[in-house]
Amino acid sequence: SIMDTQKKQGRSKFLEFPFVSAPHKNLMLDLVSTVEDRFESHLLPCSLPPDVQYYKSKNGTSQVSLHIRPSNTDSPIDFVMGSWVHAELPTGGSLDITSLSAYLNSSNDAPNFVFELIRSSPTMLILVLDLPPRKDLVLWPDYLKTFYEDTKLDTHKQALEKIPEVQPYITSSLFIRSVASPTAIFVRIQTENDEGERIDEIIKNHIDPVSKQVLGIWLDHCACAEREVGEEDKAYLIKRDGVIRNKTIEVDLGSSFPRLFGPEAAKQILEAIKEYFTV
Amino acid sequence: SIMDTQKKQGRSKFLEFPFVSAPHKNLMLDLVSTVEDRFESHLLPCSLPPDVQYYKSKNGTSQVSLHIRPSNTDSPIDFVMGSWVHAELPTGGSLDITSLSAYLNSSNDAPNFVFELIRSSPTMLILVLDLPPRKDLVLWPDYLKTFYEDTKLDTHKQALEKIPEVQPYITSSLFIRSVASPTAIFVRIQTENDEGERIDEIIKNHIDPVSKQVLGIWLDHCACAEREVGEEDKAYLIKRDGVIRNKTIEVDLGSSFPRLFGPEAAKQILEAIKEYFTV
Repeated sequence: SIMDTQKKQGRSKFLEFPFVSAPHKNLMLDLVSTVEDRFESHLLPCSLPPDVQYYKSKNGTSQVSLHIRPSNTDSPIDFVMGSWVHAELPTGGSLDITSLSAYLNSSNDAPNFVFELIRSSPTMLILVLDLPPRKDLVLWPDYLKTFYEDTKLDTHKQALEKIPEVQPYITSSLFIRSVASPTAIFVRIQTENDEGERIDEIIKNHIDPVSKQVLGIWLDHCACAEREVGEEDKAYLIKRDGVIRNKTIEVDLGSSFPRLFGPEAAKQILEAIKEYFTV
Repeated sequence: SIMDTQKKQGRSKFLEFPFVSAPHKNLMLDLVSTVEDRFESHLLPCSLPPDVQYYKSKNGTSQVSLHIRPSNTDSPIDFVMGSWVHAELPTGGSLDITSLSAYLNSSNDAPNFVFELIRSSPTMLILVLDLPPRKDLVLWPDYLKTFYEDTKLDTHKQALEKIPEVQPYITSSLFIRSVASPTAIFVRIQTENDEGERIDEIIKNHIDPVSKQVLGIWLDHCACAEREVGEEDKAYLIKRDGVIRNKTIEVDLGSSFPRLFGPEAAKQILEAIKEYFTV
């Protein structure tokens, strides 16, 4: 059918990652397939409208591919979202963002998974890699112990911080800082004036293994954790997840998409995403 | 009476700050007097036992002065705590810690105030300066806006980060990271091999004004804020404050005091502090 063909086209466009370097693309494909392989029986196909799955701005300078796979009701996963954005910059360079995130539903209170690479020039890369907590870590020290201390998540943050080109990246949004876990990796990597070889080397030798290890922790200790969530906890999760998802769209996508794709297209894309972000 | 004399001795010992440099001591005295002047009519004298107000280890290598002033019941302040620690290091150098913190009671849900300077050598200083939130900032975005965004707290963090010798200080305790606000200043200042002149210059020209401005924000917008705290909110604050205070003693003082003063004296000091830290 036409719909099946469109779905296949959206998916293959997403998996193209057409504008990023080979190590960057390989990492994205490995992360996507690791999540999909583990939860294949749970995940439904992406059913976003075709012009949301792939959109190119009228003047042709910006493109976005979005791939959201919701899960069946028996799954701890609520949905998995992958994306890439490519934008030609007025300065002559280009901006490339690729992301993969996975949100659990309220039958499991474990942290979510968030991964994003932002390459704003051959010599500048921002990495966001975190398992954002779904409960207040101050009020629930056991939650902190189980998901962050016992899993030794901080060792991966420390490993990346040892690389000389790696600097902390401090987002201007205080809300995003508040949502982050204490082991969140928010780093900016700036290298000497080369053609991007050094950043690709850092992606291949450091970001690639660290990201896969953190995703492994998420899959084994969070997504597949056997958690008992009572009715009161569930109500709390639904409320807190709701705030995070709404604010994430508003602060993150809501601020950049209108600039990249114009207000109308941005609105259409964000409305389509919001359906999945509603708790 | 003997007790009055002992109280006066404890207080004057505290205000001596006998081992730190002039700009460091001046800053501590200014911060203490700013808080005390504003809340003089609320604050009761320190009534810690004399050997907790000032303690010197048997071998004479470590000294601590503690000054806790509880507040009368009409005050938004629960208590104000100041301290200094001096320890001679086996390496020949010395370690000096000075701190001032102020805790609000549950009639006011505004952030607390925390300030600490740790000088582990003439060329190495750690600064902790924060208004730690007393509510989960993810669930209460209005609280984030009122106390952190509207007060422009982040500008002070940014000002310090511009100084070339200033680096982020990442504590190994994930709990302390979780308690910190998104505008928390945790920095390590390491300078070239001089006699400490450069760090004293940074204290005088940068840390001094920034600390006073942040304390001013705390006094005007937190301690003196007119907040309506309902019964449910109050129960939440009591629970969350309780976890923070218990864990702070355990993680922060509980790990360093036994090493500096021996297990027995450390236990006596910590027991005396715990009385005030009980919510």
